[in-house]
Amino acid sequence: MTTTTCAERLARARGQLTDRGVDALLIGPSADFRYLTGYHPPLLERLTMLVVPAQGDARLVVPALEAPLAHEHLGDLDLEVVPWQETDDPIALVRATLEASGSAGLHPPARLAVGDQLWSTFLLRLQAALPSAELTVASTVTAPLRMVKDAAEVAALAHVAAAVDRVVDDLAEMRWAGRSERDVARELDTRIRDVHDETLFVIVGAGPNSASPHHEPGDRVIQPGDAVVVDIGGSLDGYCSDTTRTLVVGEPPAGFLELHQVLQAAQEAGCAAVRAGVPAEAVDAACRQAIAAAGYGEHFIHRTGHGIGLEVHEDPYLVAGNSEPLVPGMAFSVEPGIYLAGRYGARIEDIVVCPEPDGTGARGARRLNQTSRDLRVVPG
Amino acid sequence: MTTTTCAERLARARGQLTDRGVDALLIGPSADFRYLTGYHPPLLERLTMLVVPAQGDARLVVPALEAPLAHEHLGDLDLEVVPWQETDDPIALVRATLEASGSAGLHPPARLAVGDQLWSTFLLRLQAALPSAELTVASTVTAPLRMVKDAAEVAALAHVAAAVDRVVDDLAEMRWAGRSERDVARELDTRIRDVHDETLFVIVGAGPNSASPHHEPGDRVIQPGDAVVVDIGGSLDGYCSDTTRTLVVGEPPAGFLELHQVLQAAQEAGCAAVRAGVPAEAVDAACRQAIAAAGYGEHFIHRTGHGIGLEVHEDPYLVAGNSEPLVPGMAFSVEPGIYLAGRYGARIEDIVVCPEPDGTGARGARRLNQTSRDLRVVPG
Repeated sequence: MTTTTCAERLARARGQLTDRGVDALLIGPSADFRYLTGYHPPLLERLTMLVVPAQGDARLVVPALEAPLAHEHLGDLDLEVVPWQETDDPIALVRATLEASGSAGLHPPARLAVGDQLWSTFLLRLQAALPSAELTVASTVTAPLRMVKDAAEVAALAHVAAAVDRVVDDLAEMRWAGRSERDVARELDTRIRDVHDETLFVIVGAGPNSASPHHEPGDRVIQPGDAVVVDIGGSLDGYCSDTTRTLVVGEPPAGFLELHQVLQAAQEAGCAAVRAGVPAEAVDAACRQAIAAAGYGEHFIHRTGHGIGLEVHEDPYLVAGNSEPLVPGMAFSVEPGIYLAGRYGARIEDIVVCPEPDGTGARGARRLNQTSRDLRVVPG
Repeated sequence: MTTTTCAERLARARGQLTDRGVDALLIGPSADFRYLTGYHPPLLERLTMLVVPAQGDARLVVPALEAPLAHEHLGDLDLEVVPWQETDDPIALVRATLEASGSAGLHPPARLAVGDQLWSTFLLRLQAALPSAELTVASTVTAPLRMVKDAAEVAALAHVAAAVDRVVDDLAEMRWAGRSERDVARELDTRIRDVHDETLFVIVGAGPNSASPHHEPGDRVIQPGDAVVVDIGGSLDGYCSDTTRTLVVGEPPAGFLELHQVLQAAQEAGCAAVRAGVPAEAVDAACRQAIAAAGYGEHFIHRTGHGIGLEVHEDPYLVAGNSEPLVPGMAFSVEPGIYLAGRYGARIEDIVVCPEPDGTGARGARRLNQTSRDLRVVPG
């Protein structure tokens, strides 16, 4: 992303701060940091902190040994770099930076928004240094910006979705029966890296493990009659892919074809429910209703989806209770699953974008993942 | 690690809690979590929290969809798994768990130790749910345990150090001149993965970039006369490697041979200063003195080292101001560097272990990395 884009985002974040009566944003290495500056510093025990006051100059407090790295990656973004030496107290530097911008004020107390993923060790030290400050999470300021993708971000998500789709298209050509989940996962890791900058995760759950939604690939040897859930993702130019398909090895186990048909119809229903103005939870309800109507309601044990962008999981979440209305440009997964503990499970996942209204009131998401959602039967 | 080892560690952590007057430990997915349970859950936006009260049963609050994964990895460790559904409030479950063990007491206020890397979004919600609790970081309890490695951990560190040494031994056989840093880093990533479970980091800094200690490999094409700092690490069975060597392509630039000789002697001096009972900062001082005596003092811009184990960077830190005495079994890096901004830099890093005293008062670390520390000259 360009310096101009980052400068605009910083300005919009400042606008959010003013609107919400927050004095400053304090962001450690994270997707928020990258979104606002284009730079993604190492996440380590030495504090790196972006300080964005509602009024006054933004500064970056950074370990001295990473100052050259920061300068290289920030380019000509208007951000003063404040390096700290190994025996300095970086929290004191953050406090001084807030004071310089008038954002540490004790009277009235400062209202500060700290990065959601900032480590507690830093937050507790900030609280000790600024005991009267009122703290909230930065996502109150950044999520409204990051949730709605601009055209370049949608293009980046479509590009990385196409990359992961190439891996999925080749699933049927891989060997499954007789290999361990771990072995298959290693091959998938390589295939993902071939078309991404890095692999973010590989889930391969076979047989009863297909009923464990976040299963970690292990020693189980894949056998004829196994259902196999494959959930993979990577990142390319910072944006993430995430897609799930389900396979069966040889003859499907009893009841599995019907389960997968129900799931596929539910995933269709979820995607069809997407429209600007509809609450996020309505997409969840659409999937859940289709699954419950077929008698599998208690076996759909997670929400329907999550936002995606610079992070694999980010706002908005498609879950009961989230009445946030969908907005054109929001990107998220639609990934219902049905899991029969001890037997088998299945999940189908696409990344979709909420489209601009076309004036006809038509519903339906723009799907970024385009591979077949039919059950894939591979040789047993 | 075995269930018995984890049960012993949990018991020792409980002992630390009692000794320090802390009521309970609250740990999210992290190295602390893995150290105490053998399980390393996904680090995501759904709260997973290990609750270890000083008195009473330890429990694991976990998202329902990850309960099967948790059961699989915890084996027969005596830990009750408390799953929460997508629309539950996991913080309320943590509070209830503390109350059940009598550790949430409002009178006197509960003293709780939270994971150093727990996300602020969770800490702020914990503080809101337990407004009178006094919070500190979990490392006050866990670092004293984790800093001193047992024999199995030292063996694991030696094993992973030997793995990364195989990559370093082959550095001279790789092609350097004419390739970009990024291209070389990609090859190193593959070579590291060939002998580890995963690559953790690859620094390749060539020419002026060798003076940026945490440089991220980029487009620069490596040229004759370039110094190249190569700092690599991975993990194997959970334990981390981390080693740095410096190369020069063809004819060394003016002054570089002497700089590297000074650095090599300083790294020797640091390793030689290691002895049980010596303060951690003395190792830093030994390196710094050797570098300063040669006139490069202002160019050694970082501390001498960091502990290593389940994390690449952990306690103890070898830095001025850390008077913590070294103890046999402590494992850490000794990695002085000299960086001339805009020209070139060099760093030499080994992982070492503080040995048992041999009764003679002899000093000197046990080095786990065994490759030559001489400057490597590769074809220009």
